Amino acid sequence: MRTEPDLKDAYARIDKDIARHISRTRRLLRQPSSSQQDIGIDECAELVAKLYEEVGCEKVEVVQTKGNPVVYGECKGDSDKTLLGYFMYDTMPFNEPGWKHPPMEARVVEKRLPAGKVKAIVNRGTDNTKGPLAAFLNSVEACNKSIGRPPVNLVLVAEGEEELGSPNLPLYVKKDKKRLSKADACYFPFFGQDSDGKANLYLGVKGVVYFELKASGKAWGRGPQEFAIHSSHKAWVDSPVWRLIDALKTMTDDNGNDILVEGFKDKIAPPMAEDRELIRELAKRFDAKAFKDAMKVKRFILPEDDPEALVKRFVYGTTLNIDGIWGGYTEKGSKTVLPHEVTCKIDIRLVPDQEKDEMMPLVRKHLDSHGYEDIEMKEIDTGYDCCRASVKEPVVQSMLASYKAFGQDPDIWPTSGGAVPFYVFNKMLGLPFTMSGIGHSDLAHSPNEYMVVEGNKTVAGLAEAEKFMVHFMNGFGHSD
Amino acid sequence: MRTEPDLKDAYARIDKDIARHISRTRRLLRQPSSSQQDIGIDECAELVAKLYEEVGCEKVEVVQTKGNPVVYGECKGDSDKTLLGYFMYDTMPFNEPGWKHPPMEARVVEKRLPAGKVKAIVNRGTDNTKGPLAAFLNSVEACNKSIGRPPVNLVLVAEGEEELGSPNLPLYVKKDKKRLSKADACYFPFFGQDSDGKANLYLGVKGVVYFELKASGKAWGRGPQEFAIHSSHKAWVDSPVWRLIDALKTMTDDNGNDILVEGFKDKIAPPMAEDRELIRELAKRFDAKAFKDAMKVKRFILPEDDPEALVKRFVYGTTLNIDGIWGGYTEKGSKTVLPHEVTCKIDIRLVPDQEKDEMMPLVRKHLDSHGYEDIEMKEIDTGYDCCRASVKEPVVQSMLASYKAFGQDPDIWPTSGGAVPFYVFNKMLGLPFTMSGIGHSDLAHSPNEYMVVEGNKTVAGLAEAEKFMVHFMNGFGHSD
Repeated sequence: MRTEPDLKDAYARIDKDIARHISRTRRLLRQPSSSQQDIGIDECAELVAKLYEEVGCEKVEVVQTKGNPVVYGECKGDSDKTLLGYFMYDTMPFNEPGWKHPPMEARVVEKRLPAGKVKAIVNRGTDNTKGPLAAFLNSVEACNKSIGRPPVNLVLVAEGEEELGSPNLPLYVKKDKKRLSKADACYFPFFGQDSDGKANLYLGVKGVVYFELKASGKAWGRGPQEFAIHSSHKAWVDSPVWRLIDALKTMTDDNGNDILVEGFKDKIAPPMAEDRELIRELAKRFDAKAFKDAMKVKRFILPEDDPEALVKRFVYGTTLNIDGIWGGYTEKGSKTVLPHEVTCKIDIRLVPDQEKDEMMPLVRKHLDSHGYEDIEMKEIDTGYDCCRASVKEPVVQSMLASYKAFGQDPDIWPTSGGAVPFYVFNKMLGLPFTMSGIGHSDLAHSPNEYMVVEGNKTVAGLAEAEKFMVHFMNGFGHSD
Repeated sequence: MRTEPDLKDAYARIDKDIARHISRTRRLLRQPSSSQQDIGIDECAELVAKLYEEVGCEKVEVVQTKGNPVVYGECKGDSDKTLLGYFMYDTMPFNEPGWKHPPMEARVVEKRLPAGKVKAIVNRGTDNTKGPLAAFLNSVEACNKSIGRPPVNLVLVAEGEEELGSPNLPLYVKKDKKRLSKADACYFPFFGQDSDGKANLYLGVKGVVYFELKASGKAWGRGPQEFAIHSSHKAWVDSPVWRLIDALKTMTDDNGNDILVEGFKDKIAPPMAEDRELIRELAKRFDAKAFKDAMKVKRFILPEDDPEALVKRFVYGTTLNIDGIWGGYTEKGSKTVLPHEVTCKIDIRLVPDQEKDEMMPLVRKHLDSHGYEDIEMKEIDTGYDCCRASVKEPVVQSMLASYKAFGQDPDIWPTSGGAVPFYVFNKMLGLPFTMSGIGHSDLAHSPNEYMVVEGNKTVAGLAEAEKFMVHFMNGFGHSD
């Protein structure tokens, strides 16, 4: 336990350097790094390594894996404690329609949020999660340039395959276990405020499995085998498209909300004891309107007059979602064809104690037992299990203390809906973990993804978000 | 009734000019004319007009309509009778994958058919139906250059919107009724031999209706309203994709083969008396293997050991076919999104006495009564009713006589599976009609569409197909 530094010096440095910090953030954002399309990955890994060095990290390495490189770095801090910073430098694809500003120019635009007027960067990766990565590196630099060192030892791991389900991260962690095991906890920074300024702390993440289902004449032995044929033959030739629809229909009911795959929900564990109080509190605070406004959603699956049921549905809800579907003629006009194949992408979100390795076999078994042996399944992401940390963990308590110090009383969610591969650090290295922070960003996976850089009294801008990070590092670095 | 000319002179002319005929055919084929994509339409109309003139037609006019132009022409023949030649110069799109030769270069390639080795042109429109149009114009030219005139008066109508459902043809026919009414019958040339040389005569065509169904968060008032959102929200937000699947599933059973839309089949008429004998004969002759080999289809909906049931299914079968479906993320990888909308294209094939104007309302009513009022329907083609001619019609008898003269004993089908807007000429002008001929082409609407130009003993090449056309014109021109 060392003496706590005066964080005011670090905060002043952030304020002084904020223009440069924004510029660094935009630099990282403008470098494409779409792992699914394999665009700009190596270039982005090199850039992240450069930024590690620029902000004062030591032992910076671009570690090659079987897939995209991991960018490793260390930064000696003024503490007995070590924090493992987990980041991803890859993003979702950015070529979908609907962007009001170019998705890779990192334009700074005025934006009116429920929290009031702000300035925000619009770019793929602002929210998920090159924005928070840049903010964190900025905060490290500010420490180095003011109080001399970060207030905690840092081990940094930025992977480039999170949007592919982190297939090579476990192997990397296994190989680099010695260096990574120095850490006492894992930290995944992000901007944890909603558009109305409300802060959220997520104690865990869901797991995920991603695969494709394909119906084809070839596998079925019926219908067109090799190409789409004239649709007049539908009179006496089968259709793989209708077959996929029949097969999908056996898997859910009630518009996909009631999952009928046998055994799908069997392993779901009852809520943890500490969840009960959290859920009750969340239900009291739940602001349906803020969420609906941000996501342009008109109503939830469940009625809003029972917020506890709604919150529970989000926290404990496993899902079978169709991410995309395509087959046959999909352009303008009326080409009349009987397609030979049709494919859909499906993701499953996992809650405790569903096991990711069991989900695809369950779907397979369901299809087989309903007579759809011919429907092909293809794993797209290796996927991973969900992961939870107790609110009592010191690293979570440090996060809560920082929230308090910054005037926030966050909603504490037992889990986020999204997936982060914390299980790698939690199960393989035994590390507790936390995520969150202040600041606001949104529209991950959607067009017009953004992060606030110039906030207001209600929602934090980049400088405040960085100060929070410094505070959190210090809190954990100097906790008992 | 005039004296029949000696057709040998015309045949000799065809043989002499066949290289030029092939070259003219390729010229027409290489001109793109994809009506659905609006590519090359005006240029192709101009080219058809030029070809009309080139082969000796009079009163050639490119008639503007509200849509694509109609190319009108006349050719005075040596007869009291007038034949209305109906053609289309538009084609399906040609940008689908799977072409082994460029779809617009009209390459002449060797091909091994069940009928033996041939030379064929591979190009969009060879089969459907710029190939037969070019052949017919060639045959007219041969008459003009040998026996002086075609052996029948000709009124030529080439439309450019057949693949859009001929939306402006009825209005055109109404306007030009005076000139068109001179005709005694309507004729639609095509290459009527299968790949094994067997000839087919179709007495009618099915009708068609084409529309899109769209499920969206916006129309539904549930799910994402404006854009695809992060799929983690599936836990508490509805999915329009699952909704469309649920809705589609109510419309058919047995992989789309059993149509459950209420009233869909109510108006289907019992087989015409003359069909019974035709069906019995077709069942005797039916060669399942030839069809399956050509279409790369492994099996039919019904077992092959009851060919009569199979033939009946083709002739009397109405269909509800999904031509295409798309929504959400459809590229490589695992983008996790909850889509805000999904669309599918559907075509219905109509048999007597289904009425095209009733089909979309029936689907609408079905959706509404099952609680899917929000699923949007959009008409893509105006569509048209089916149409039938009796085998006893003089123009059909002329066709049969020509088959006989060319050593063919065609299978006589009460209807083709495809749709041709004969109803316009049949219902509005009261004209009987026929289609067919010899020669072979295939793979309409599929990649690698082709037509034979150099045949063999079993399957006719272009020259033979043209001679057949001359014979047919003469037969009808000099019938009682």
